[in-house]
Amino acid sequence: MTKVSPLAPKTIAALPPIAGVRLATHACGIRYQGRDDLMVAELAAGTAVAGVFTRSLTASAPVLWCRQAVKGGSARLLVVNSGNANAFTGAAGIASVRRTVDTAAKLARCRAEEVFIASTGTIGVPLDDAKITATLATVLAGLSADHWAAASRAIMTTDTYPKTATRTAVIHGVTVRINGFCKGAGMIAPDMATMLAYIFTDAALPAPVLQTLLRKGADKSFNAITVDSDTSTSDSLVLFATGKAGNRPVADVDDKALKDFRRALYDLLLDLALQVVKDGEGASKFVRVNVTGAASRRAARRIAFAIANSPLVKTAVAGEDANWGRIVMAVGKAGEKADRDHLAICIGGVLVAKDGEMVPAYDEAPVTAHMKGTDVVFDVDVGVGRGKATVWTCDLTHDYIDINGSYRT
Amino acid sequence: MTKVSPLAPKTIAALPPIAGVRLATHACGIRYQGRDDLMVAELAAGTAVAGVFTRSLTASAPVLWCRQAVKGGSARLLVVNSGNANAFTGAAGIASVRRTVDTAAKLARCRAEEVFIASTGTIGVPLDDAKITATLATVLAGLSADHWAAASRAIMTTDTYPKTATRTAVIHGVTVRINGFCKGAGMIAPDMATMLAYIFTDAALPAPVLQTLLRKGADKSFNAITVDSDTSTSDSLVLFATGKAGNRPVADVDDKALKDFRRALYDLLLDLALQVVKDGEGASKFVRVNVTGAASRRAARRIAFAIANSPLVKTAVAGEDANWGRIVMAVGKAGEKADRDHLAICIGGVLVAKDGEMVPAYDEAPVTAHMKGTDVVFDVDVGVGRGKATVWTCDLTHDYIDINGSYRT
Repeated sequence: MTKVSPLAPKTIAALPPIAGVRLATHACGIRYQGRDDLMVAELAAGTAVAGVFTRSLTASAPVLWCRQAVKGGSARLLVVNSGNANAFTGAAGIASVRRTVDTAAKLARCRAEEVFIASTGTIGVPLDDAKITATLATVLAGLSADHWAAASRAIMTTDTYPKTATRTAVIHGVTVRINGFCKGAGMIAPDMATMLAYIFTDAALPAPVLQTLLRKGADKSFNAITVDSDTSTSDSLVLFATGKAGNRPVADVDDKALKDFRRALYDLLLDLALQVVKDGEGASKFVRVNVTGAASRRAARRIAFAIANSPLVKTAVAGEDANWGRIVMAVGKAGEKADRDHLAICIGGVLVAKDGEMVPAYDEAPVTAHMKGTDVVFDVDVGVGRGKATVWTCDLTHDYIDINGSYRT
Repeated sequence: MTKVSPLAPKTIAALPPIAGVRLATHACGIRYQGRDDLMVAELAAGTAVAGVFTRSLTASAPVLWCRQAVKGGSARLLVVNSGNANAFTGAAGIASVRRTVDTAAKLARCRAEEVFIASTGTIGVPLDDAKITATLATVLAGLSADHWAAASRAIMTTDTYPKTATRTAVIHGVTVRINGFCKGAGMIAPDMATMLAYIFTDAALPAPVLQTLLRKGADKSFNAITVDSDTSTSDSLVLFATGKAGNRPVADVDDKALKDFRRALYDLLLDLALQVVKDGEGASKFVRVNVTGAASRRAARRIAFAIANSPLVKTAVAGEDANWGRIVMAVGKAGEKADRDHLAICIGGVLVAKDGEMVPAYDEAPVTAHMKGTDVVFDVDVGVGRGKATVWTCDLTHDYIDINGSYRT
C-alpha cells in the first residue's frame, strides 16, 4: 500500500525555521529498513510546553511518561520513534522509556521531566531502546533548524503523505510563527498505533496559557475527526513555545492580545487534523457533518459522531448513495434529544428531508452530482435547540478492509 | 445477493402448532414481487402480551403504536409487512398505522389496542396501506395452525434464511410450548430497517410476568448481539401467551414454578438472536466475546461491545489475524475501569497476553488454527472486579461493503 490517498493535498507545506527549534532524524532500523525512524527536536532553554494525550485506559508507556512530564510546563527535547509503539509492553516498556529519557536528559543537560517522548508502530512488542540510546549522541550532533521535511516523514507509519502546516500571528505587535506536523491514518493502523502531532512556535507564552489554548483547539480539530471510531493507545498532541520571538508574554488566556494567535493556532490544528482524515485508511471521500438544532453543543457533537461513525452511513458515502434514511437512523441511535417530526437533512446543500418526511419532489440531480464528488457535506438539524457541532470523517471502503484485514495466506 | 450465509444453521427448525395461534401470509406486492410480504397471526381471546422495542428516538410509526398498545397487556392480532418500514413517514405514517389497526380490529372483532403491527423495509417512503387493508379479510379467511414456515419467510428482507426455534417447558406439571421466529441481518439493512422477533406460547401467564421475563431475556440475547453497531428504527420483540396449555397461572415472576419456562424462553431467545448474528451482512465468522473481571456487569458489557463493534477487531477477524493488540485498544477506548497491567486475553482458549504483556512463547499453532475456523472466541479479563458479560458479533468483510455500499453505476 504505497499509493498516496486520492484526498491528499495538492502540495505539502514547506515549514520555515522557528527560532529556538532544531531538528534531526536518523535511521535506527527499529522496524523499517531504508528510511529514518527517529525524530529528535531540541528546544531552547525556557521553552514552555502543553500537551493533550489519549484518554485510553490502556495508554502506552510513553504517554504515561508525558502525562506526568507536561505538568512541569518546561521542555528541552522531543524524541519520537516509528516502527514500535511501546504499548502493552508492561514493566519492560516503562523501563525502556526511563532509559531513553535519562540518556536524552544527560546528553541535553536538562532534567528528565523536560524530555518528551513518543513511539508509534507495532503494539505489544518490546522496544529495543538501545537502538535509540546508542545513536542519540550522534543524532544530536546533526541538529539543524532546517530539517522539518525529514522530521515530518520520520514519524510516519501507514500515512501515505507527510502532514505539515505553518501560520503566522501577531502578539502585541510582534509577528510570531507556528509550525506543525503530524501523523495518523486510522485511529490505530494495522498493528500500528496512533495519531501524533507536534506544534512549535517562537511565541513567548506561559505553559498554563498554552495548555488552555491547546485543549480548546484540540476540541475543534483533532477531537472532532474520526476515521473508524477506534481510539489509539498513543495519541499525543504537544505544543512547544520557545519564546524567541520576543513578544511581551500574555499571562491571561482571555487577554485580547491572544486573539490573532488563537485564530492562527486553531486554524493550523484544524488544517493538520483534516489532513489526517484525508489520509484515512482506504478513504475515497471526505465528509463534513454539521449538526444544528441540538439541545446543547455536547448533544450536537454526539449526534454528529453517531452519523460520522455509522458503518451504514460510511458505506453509503462510499457507494455515492444519498441515503438520508441512514442519517435518520444514526440520529435516532445517538441517544440525544431530537424531534423526529422536525428533523431536516440537507445533502450538498439540497434539502432532502424536513418535518419528519422526505421532501416530496427534491431535485435529485445536484444531490447525485454532489455524492459523486470527493467532498461530501451533510447538514442535519434535529429541531430541538441551539446546540451545534461539526465533525469530519471519511467513507468506509474495500481498501479499509484490505488494509486492516491483512488477509493471511 | 441470494447466497445463504456460510454461518447459517444446517437445518431450519420446523415449528409445531401452538394452541390458540393461527397464521396466514399473503403476497400484497408492497415492494417485492412473487413472494409473500404480509404475515398475520391471530391470537385466541385471553392472550397476554409483552414487548420490547427499539430505544431509537427516530422510531417508526408502528413502533410508536406498539409501545402504547403493549401497556394494555392483551393481544388478538399481529399484522406485519415487509418491503416498507413506514419509518420517517411523518403524519402519513401515523395515519397509515391507524387505518390498518382499525380495519384489523373490526375484522377480528377486538379493540384496536389488541392489534400489534410492524413494518420492515424501505425507510422514508409512504406505505400504501390500502394494499394491506383491502386484502385483510381474505387473508384472515386463510388462517391455519400450520403456517409457521410461510410466516417466518414472509417477514424476511435481506435475510438469507428464515430464523426459527421451538422449545418446551413444564409449569406446575403441565408441558407448555414456545415457538419463535425472527428476521434481521444488519441492525439496518440497505434502505431496510430492522430486527423483528415474535414469540408465541400456550402457557398461561399474566402480562406483567411476561414483560419482566422478556426484558431480562432480551438483555441476554437480542441486546447482547451486534452486527455493525447501528440501531434500527423498528426493532421489535413481542411475546404472546395464549394460556391454552391450561397450566395454573403464576402471578409472581420470582415463583420457582417459572424456573423451567424461564430457562426454555431464554434459550430460545438466544438461539434466535444468534441466528441473526450468523446472518449478519457479509459475515464469514461468528465471534463470541467474553469479558470478565470488570467493575460491574454493565462495565463488562460496555467493554465487550467496544471490542465487538471495533472495525479494527472485526477486520482482523475477517483476515484471520490473531491481533490481540486491537483488543487491548478496544478495552482502552471503552471508558470503563480496566487494569492495563493485569489485562489477560485468550484467543480460542489460548492465553496470548497477561499482566499487560504478550505471553512470550505462547503456542501460535492452535491460535492460528482457531482464527481459520468459523467460530472465534475471545476471553478478556480486565483485572479489576467480578463483573462479566458475553456479546456476540460477526466479522467485517468486503461483502458488508458490497451489500451496504450498493455502488451506483
